[in-house]
Amino acid sequence: MLPAPRSYRLAELASELGLSYRGDGQLRIDGVATLSSAGPTDASFLANPAYRTELDRTQAAAVVTTAGVADRYSGPTLISANPYADWARLIGLLRPEPLIEPGVHPSAVIAADAEIPESAHIAAQVSIAAGVRLGERVSIGPGCVIDRNVSIGDDSRLVARVYVGGRARLGKRVIVHPGVVIGADGFGLAMDRGHWRKVPQVGSVNIGDDCEIGANTTIDRGAIDDTVLEADVRIDNQVQIAHNVRIGAHTAIAGCVGIAGSTRIGRYCMIAGASGIGGHLEICDSVIITAMSTVLDSIDQPGEYGSGIPARPHARWKRLLVRLGQLDEWAKRLARLEKSNKHYGSGKP
Amino acid sequence: MLPAPRSYRLAELASELGLSYRGDGQLRIDGVATLSSAGPTDASFLANPAYRTELDRTQAAAVVTTAGVADRYSGPTLISANPYADWARLIGLLRPEPLIEPGVHPSAVIAADAEIPESAHIAAQVSIAAGVRLGERVSIGPGCVIDRNVSIGDDSRLVARVYVGGRARLGKRVIVHPGVVIGADGFGLAMDRGHWRKVPQVGSVNIGDDCEIGANTTIDRGAIDDTVLEADVRIDNQVQIAHNVRIGAHTAIAGCVGIAGSTRIGRYCMIAGASGIGGHLEICDSVIITAMSTVLDSIDQPGEYGSGIPARPHARWKRLLVRLGQLDEWAKRLARLEKSNKHYGSGKP
Amino acid sequence: MLPAPRSYRLAELASELGLSYRGDGQLRIDGVATLSSAGPTDASFLANPAYRTELDRTQAAAVVTTAGVADRYSGPTLISANPYADWARLIGLLRPEPLIEPGVHPSAVIAADAEIPESAHIAAQVSIAAGVRLGERVSIGPGCVIDRNVSIGDDSRLVARVYVGGRARLGKRVIVHPGVVIGADGFGLAMDRGHWRKVPQVGSVNIGDDCEIGANTTIDRGAIDDTVLEADVRIDNQVQIAHNVRIGAHTAIAGCVGIAGSTRIGRYCMIAGASGIGGHLEICDSVIITAMSTVLDSIDQPGEYGSGIPARPHARWKRLLVRLGQLDEWAKRLARLEKSNKHYGSGKP
Repeated sequence: MLPAPRSYRLAELASELGLSYRGDGQLRIDGVATLSSAGPTDASFLANPAYRTELDRTQAAAVVTTAGVADRYSGPTLISANPYADWARLIGLLRPEPLIEPGVHPSAVIAADAEIPESAHIAAQVSIAAGVRLGERVSIGPGCVIDRNVSIGDDSRLVARVYVGGRARLGKRVIVHPGVVIGADGFGLAMDRGHWRKVPQVGSVNIGDDCEIGANTTIDRGAIDDTVLEADVRIDNQVQIAHNVRIGAHTAIAGCVGIAGSTRIGRYCMIAGASGIGGHLEICDSVIITAMSTVLDSIDQPGEYGSGIPARPHARWKRLLVRLGQLDEWAKRLARLEKSNKHYGSGKP
Repeated sequence: MLPAPRSYRLAELASELGLSYRGDGQLRIDGVATLSSAGPTDASFLANPAYRTELDRTQAAAVVTTAGVADRYSGPTLISANPYADWARLIGLLRPEPLIEPGVHPSAVIAADAEIPESAHIAAQVSIAAGVRLGERVSIGPGCVIDRNVSIGDDSRLVARVYVGGRARLGKRVIVHPGVVIGADGFGLAMDRGHWRKVPQVGSVNIGDDCEIGANTTIDRGAIDDTVLEADVRIDNQVQIAHNVRIGAHTAIAGCVGIAGSTRIGRYCMIAGASGIGGHLEICDSVIITAMSTVLDSIDQPGEYGSGIPARPHARWKRLLVRLGQLDEWAKRLARLEKSNKHYGSGKP
Repeated sequence: MLPAPRSYRLAELASELGLSYRGDGQLRIDGVATLSSAGPTDASFLANPAYRTELDRTQAAAVVTTAGVADRYSGPTLISANPYADWARLIGLLRPEPLIEPGVHPSAVIAADAEIPESAHIAAQVSIAAGVRLGERVSIGPGCVIDRNVSIGDDSRLVARVYVGGRARLGKRVIVHPGVVIGADGFGLAMDRGHWRKVPQVGSVNIGDDCEIGANTTIDRGAIDDTVLEADVRIDNQVQIAHNVRIGAHTAIAGCVGIAGSTRIGRYCMIAGASGIGGHLEICDSVIITAMSTVLDSIDQPGEYGSGIPARPHARWKRLLVRLGQLDEWAKRLARLEKSNKHYGSGKP
C-alpha cells in the first residue's frame, strides 16, 4: 500500500529533522528534486560546494546545505553539517516507503512448519520451504523462493524474485533487491581421474543487520564454514561474492565487483565498480580500491589502491601496447646504453 | 503458439524482401543455416567478403549477399545492398516469432486496478501490482513481476522472470529477456556517524521504443530524476546501468558492461564487452569503446577508444609487469643518460 | 526431504571410500569441518601440504590426507592419493544431498503435452511449456520456467528460479543454480538505415552431461547453429556465454567471465575470474587464463596466459600511468640516445 503523499511547512521539516532553517518557515514543501529540476514546492540539496553555481538558477522551495554555502545563498535553506545524510532523511519524510501489509497471499506456497509471524507480508507466487523462520514485519516480495532452514530477521525486505538458500541467516533490516541469489553452492571442484568431482558445499551464509544487497548480486554459501557479511555492508548490483568470503562491517562494494573465495575484507572499505579481488587474500580496514582494478595481493595498510587504465584514443592506445610489449627489449637497451656511457662517457672524455 | 513452418519459392522470397535474385525462381526454401551447415532447401548469407571461400562448399539453396560477391558465385543468390539486415528480415519470414495469444493465465495475480487490454498475453505465475498499465498486444511471460505504477507500451514483450519496478515506463516494441531487473533502487548511501544511511531512490526509469535488454541485465531507477534509455538502444546480457545514466538513441552495449551513475552516453555509440564506464561522465555521439576498457574521462570526439590489454603467455606477461613497475626508475635513468650524453657525447668528442 | 544425518565409524568410512586408514577404526565421525573448526567427531582434510601446521592444532576425529603428510602426523587419518577428491566423496556420505521427492506441486503450470516422468520432482510456481521433455528423476525447483521444446536429461537438477528456453537440450546430471538463464536470444543486430534491426536468433543450446552452471550465469542460444557446452563443463556464477560459443569437455570457468560470440574453447581449460574473451577466437585445449585477463587473440599452444595488472598504492599507480603514457616519447629518446652513442660513444672515444 502506498502511503498518502506528505506535505510539510519548512519549519516543520526543520523540526522533524532537528535542523535549523533560514527563510519563511511557512513555505509549503511537498516534493524532492534536483536543484535544476526543482519546482516551487520541492526541496533540494547541495552537498558538494563545487556545484554551488546551480543554486543561482534553482526554483527549489528550500535547499538542504551547509551553513557555509547558505551564507552565500539568499534563498530558504535547511542548515546541515552533513547535507547528504539529512537529505536522505528528508526524502524519507516526503516520500515514505510503502507500508508493509501483513498477511500471506493465497498463491504463496508455504511449508507447514515455516514460522511466519502475523506481522509479515508474503506476496504472490512466493515459495517458502520447511524450517524457514521469518522475523516480525518481514516482507517477502513476489516470486521469492526461500529454501529450507533459512532465517530472516525483523523488518527485512526481499523486494521480488530473490532466492535465499544454503540455510542462510539474514539479520534485521536487511534489504535484498530483485534477482539476488544468496546461498547457492560455491564453486568447489576436485579433479578426479580426468573428470571434475563436485565438492559438496555444506557451509552457510551469515548476513548481518542493516545490509543491503543490489539486484542480481550473488553470494555463495560457504564450502564448510560460512560466508559472512558483517553489519551494515552495502553491496550494489551484479556483485559476485564467492564461498567463505568475509566482509567487514560498513564496507561498500559498487556494481560488477567479483570477490574470489576465502578472501577477507576489512571494515569501512570501499571497492569501486568492476574490480576483481583474488582468492585467499586479506584486505585490512579502510582500504579503497579504485574502479576496474585487479587485487591479487593482500593489503595491510589503509589507503587507496588501483590498477585500472583509463581509455585513450584507440590508435594511441595501440601504439602504447606495442611499446608495452617492447619493455623487455628496452630494459636491455637501457642497460647497454648505461654501460656504454659508463665506459666512454663517464666524465672522462 | 508456434506458427506453422513456412516455405517459399526463391522468387517469392525476393518479392517479399524487395530484392532481386539470380538463379531458378522456383527453388523451394524452407530453412535458414550457415553456409557450412546449409542443406539444399536452406537459405544462407554472406555479409563479409572475407569469408567468400565458404561459398565454394555450401549446399545452400540460395545465398543473400552483395552484387559484388554474387558476380563471382554461380549459385542462386538474393542480391542485397545490406546482406546482414536482409538476412535478418529473411529469417523473420521463414522462422516467424511465436504469436501472442491474448488472455490472462488463471495463475497470474493481477491488481484490480491494473489496465490490461484484451489483446495482451499474461502468462502463468505473473504478478502485476496496482496502477500498472499495459499497451495493446503486450506479452508478459511466466514468472514476471510488474511492480506498482509501471507502464509498458504496445507490442512490448517481457520473455520470462523479469522484474520491472520503480514506476518505470517502457516504450513500444521493447523486448526484455529473462532475469532482467528494471527499476531497482540505485546505490545511494550517505555516511552518517559511522553508519551508512540509505538515500531513498525516488526517480524512475524511462525506456524508449524499440529497445532490447539482454538477460540478467540491471537498470536502476534514478535517485531523483530518471534513468533514461532513448529509442532503439540495444543492450546485451549482464550489463549494469546505474541510477541516472542516460543512453542516447541507437547505442549498442555488449555483455558485462558496467556504467556508473549519472553518466550520459551519446547516440550511435558502441560499447564492447566487459568495459567499465565511470560515473558523471559525458560520452559524445558515435563513440566506440573497445573490449575490457576502463573509461574514466569524458569523451567529446567521436572515434574509437580503449585500454584493454591483450593477454600474453604468462611468463612473458609477468616479465612485462616487472618492467612496468620499473618505469618510474627508468624515467630517471633515461634522463640521466640524456644529461650525460649532452655533456660528454653531444657531438663534440 | 532432508535425509537423516549420517554417522560412521572411521573403519566404515575408509571402507566406503576405498581408502586405508590409520588410528582407531571405532572412532565415531558424524560431521565435516575445516582443520581449525573441527570438533572431536568431525572429519577434516589437508590437501595442500603448505597448510600442514594446521594439523598441530586440529581436534578433528580424522583427517583425509596423503600418506606423506600422514607419516608426520600422529592423529587418525584416511590415506588418499587425491585428498581433495576423496574429501568431496566423504562429504557426500556424511552430508547427503536432499532426496528428490517425485511428484508435481499443484501450483505448477504444465503444458498438456509436456513429458514429465513420474520420478521427476516439479516444485511450486514452476511453469513448463509445450513440447518439454524431462528425464527420469529430474528436479525442477521453485519458480523455474521451462520454455517450449526444451529437453532435460535424467537426474538433472534446476535448483530454483532458472529459465531455460531456446529449445535447449540439457544432458544428464546437469546442475543449474538459481537465476541462470539458458537459451535467451543472442545479441544479433544489423544496422539498417540508421536503426538497429534484430537478427532473429534461431539456434539452440546444447549442454552435455555432468555440467554445472553457477547462479545468475547466462548462456545464449545460437544465432543459427547451436551454442555448445560439452560434457563436464563447470561454470561459476555470473558468467556470460554468448551465442555460438563452444566449450570443450572438462573446462572450468570462474565467476564473472564473459565469452563473446562464436569463440571456441578447448578441453581442460581453466579460465580465472572476471576475464573477458573476445569473439570468433579459437582457444586450444589445456589453456589457463589468469584472473582479469583480456583475451583478444586465438591461442594454439597449451599453457598459462594473462594480462591482469595487480593493484598498487594509488599514488604509485598514477605515476606509472603517466610513465605508460610517455612510452611513445621514450621510444624516440631511447633511439636518439643509441644513435648518439653509436656515433660518439661507440668505443672510439
